Amino acid sequence: MSIPSELTDLKLTRRGAALFITLDRPQAKNALTAEMVSGLSELADALIAETEVRVVVLRGAGATFCAGGDVKDFAKQMMAPDPAPGERDPVRDANRAFGTLLQKLDAIPQVFVSVVEGAAFGGAMGFLSVSDVVIAAEGARYSLSEATLGIPPAQIGPFVVRKIGLFNARRLALTGARFENDTALSVGLIDERVSAADIELALKNWLNDVGRCDPAAVAATKALMNRAAATIDDAQLDAAADDFVRCLRGQGRAGAMAFAARQAPPWVEDFSDD
Amino acid sequence: MSIPSELTDLKLTRRGAALFITLDRPQAKNALTAEMVSGLSELADALIAETEVRVVVLRGAGATFCAGGDVKDFAKQMMAPDPAPGERDPVRDANRAFGTLLQKLDAIPQVFVSVVEGAAFGGAMGFLSVSDVVIAAEGARYSLSEATLGIPPAQIGPFVVRKIGLFNARRLALTGARFENDTALSVGLIDERVSAADIELALKNWLNDVGRCDPAAVAATKALMNRAAATIDDAQLDAAADDFVRCLRGQGRAGAMAFAARQAPPWVEDFSDD
Amino acid sequence: MSIPSELTDLKLTRRGAALFITLDRPQAKNALTAEMVSGLSELADALIAETEVRVVVLRGAGATFCAGGDVKDFAKQMMAPDPAPGERDPVRDANRAFGTLLQKLDAIPQVFVSVVEGAAFGGAMGFLSVSDVVIAAEGARYSLSEATLGIPPAQIGPFVVRKIGLFNARRLALTGARFENDTALSVGLIDERVSAADIELALKNWLNDVGRCDPAAVAATKALMNRAAATIDDAQLDAAADDFVRCLRGQGRAGAMAFAARQAPPWVEDFSDD
Repeated sequence: MSIPSELTDLKLTRRGAALFITLDRPQAKNALTAEMVSGLSELADALIAETEVRVVVLRGAGATFCAGGDVKDFAKQMMAPDPAPGERDPVRDANRAFGTLLQKLDAIPQVFVSVVEGAAFGGAMGFLSVSDVVIAAEGARYSLSEATLGIPPAQIGPFVVRKIGLFNARRLALTGARFENDTALSVGLIDERVSAADIELALKNWLNDVGRCDPAAVAATKALMNRAAATIDDAQLDAAADDFVRCLRGQGRAGAMAFAARQAPPWVEDFSDD
Repeated sequence: MSIPSELTDLKLTRRGAALFITLDRPQAKNALTAEMVSGLSELADALIAETEVRVVVLRGAGATFCAGGDVKDFAKQMMAPDPAPGERDPVRDANRAFGTLLQKLDAIPQVFVSVVEGAAFGGAMGFLSVSDVVIAAEGARYSLSEATLGIPPAQIGPFVVRKIGLFNARRLALTGARFENDTALSVGLIDERVSAADIELALKNWLNDVGRCDPAAVAATKALMNRAAATIDDAQLDAAADDFVRCLRGQGRAGAMAFAARQAPPWVEDFSDD
Repeated sequence: MSIPSELTDLKLTRRGAALFITLDRPQAKNALTAEMVSGLSELADALIAETEVRVVVLRGAGATFCAGGDVKDFAKQMMAPDPAPGERDPVRDANRAFGTLLQKLDAIPQVFVSVVEGAAFGGAMGFLSVSDVVIAAEGARYSLSEATLGIPPAQIGPFVVRKIGLFNARRLALTGARFENDTALSVGLIDERVSAADIELALKNWLNDVGRCDPAAVAATKALMNRAAATIDDAQLDAAADDFVRCLRGQGRAGAMAFAARQAPPWVEDFSDD
């Protein structure tokens, strides 16, 4: 499965080993339609098998990140009749689909970087909660205010809890919080805040850090750390030892040979000139 | 089951959708007797089924929060003979009862706010560890010093770990720590520190944030986030989708209609005039 | 099983109830050989049954903590032929052995303190991730840069995740981070930073805090908190109640009698004069 070349309201740009995804519905603050969720899901499926791409960068068009779910989709759900007893509920399926997307994005073997400008509301919080690195521009605004709309942060809830901790999540969600970079940084939702003018430089620095890492080791590390988030048991450490051997006998060996020959390891990528 | 009207050494005050619980044994720094634990447990049972109350505020009488377990109960336990082989141990039952109370308080569908003045020792740390919001007045003092008394922080241990993280908990407990607001804030035990004069204002601000949230969505959010604290799996995301549908088809719809009619959603509560 | 008296490249010093372990291969920045891992593992086994030792302090000789796995061992692994199908892989066994050591160190009933000077790379990060207290001298340097060598932080990965959180771990590991005390402190890898001149004083203060705690309560607390790191369930709270009873009926009772007699509890240890 290769990276799709065209997806509705998503712009894809490839620069070397980096894939840039732009949520591209600026007229609606990049609010997510069912079609966009489906496109991102297709993209995540392709990324899981993709070894040329080493880092994925998610941004929003028009200097805003994402305003969450699309209001029209949402209104349609609100007004849909309740399903007949025993009938499958399409509202439930649509909600669950976003959680499936987050599970997939969380599992891509690439380093996943999000760049936040402007609004990061609703589902956008889910994207941040599966990002390895989040850079935020001054003025970014966040919201975990679903309860003020009469609904829970349902599919994003478990991911937000894992990202910022149970009690930061409970406090913010149960008080319908809208917040800014200060809070986002202190709870660990974002990793770096920069002025809008410095976004590109900050991003390039992170990408070059990624560029020094072997992609196979990155993929193994991300997967073993995700497994570890639940608990540490024998099965997990056994699997980690398998990861170690696979990497060491793979690129690790090539890297050691390069090191001995005073050459750069084969996986090094410099994103500076892209 | 309705809110009990009278409970030994506990003062209950209702202001609109807020229930204020005061630990009311100031002569003993509100140290918890078995009767108080039993009363709070009865209260938590009632709250689980109670939909009129949306926020519960726990405080201590006499400008101190709670000095932990009652010294006399404790002395009685110390001096009790060991149970005969095969006999039920009443000391164990009394200890376990406090964990059951914390499980219940953690599961109440209301937002749970604690206001700390003065001492928060022993079992008081358990209350803070199941609070959605903790406001602390200047001068508050905390203790995880059970080990200096020859006992472990047993029932509160798992809750403290979940609240402040395993290694903050290990470091503080294994060094018998007594600490103040600086540490409490940095490990995430408390959320806001204010001067004693500003407690009422700070509390009102938090209550009004809660007041903007739909109680059904709050209850669903709290429960799904608690489930998420363990791990993220399919069953959890399935359950979250069910939560979403239930809320959206319930108050969510009413809220959307109010929004369309430019009216406030039906659940909004302003605590300012209480 | 008693504390071994001599172990290759490890120096053991006993001062009262404190055992000081020095990684003693300064010519190689205390890089860990298979023999050292085996020696530390033997030591951890002995400590699990040892009740005279109450606190274990790990340091490195020559003002450096530990540079990780030994480069020669590592080179040997790199160049080892792949095992025949169905054959046991010695590289995997060697990797897994380090995880077993960390599991044992995490489970010792003593308070485990690490003092970092200079480098704390690779496996050293594992030691810090099972330490109850970490003191770092100015100038300490850390590394989670395995992926830049083509391998994952395999056995240490789950422990690092548990210590600093999934996303701090993912960000640092997936960007091949080398970092200093600022970052180490903010992610919770270390607990106190001091000038090199103040290490002994800082250490003594921590040891005296430990000295005020009953060792049986410390052991029970550490074990119950470790169990709690996974999830809070009935089985866990039941076990915690058992811990409580065992301690209360043991040293807790002796402590209460001492308290009543206005004497210091029997377990108090003052490390100031060592």
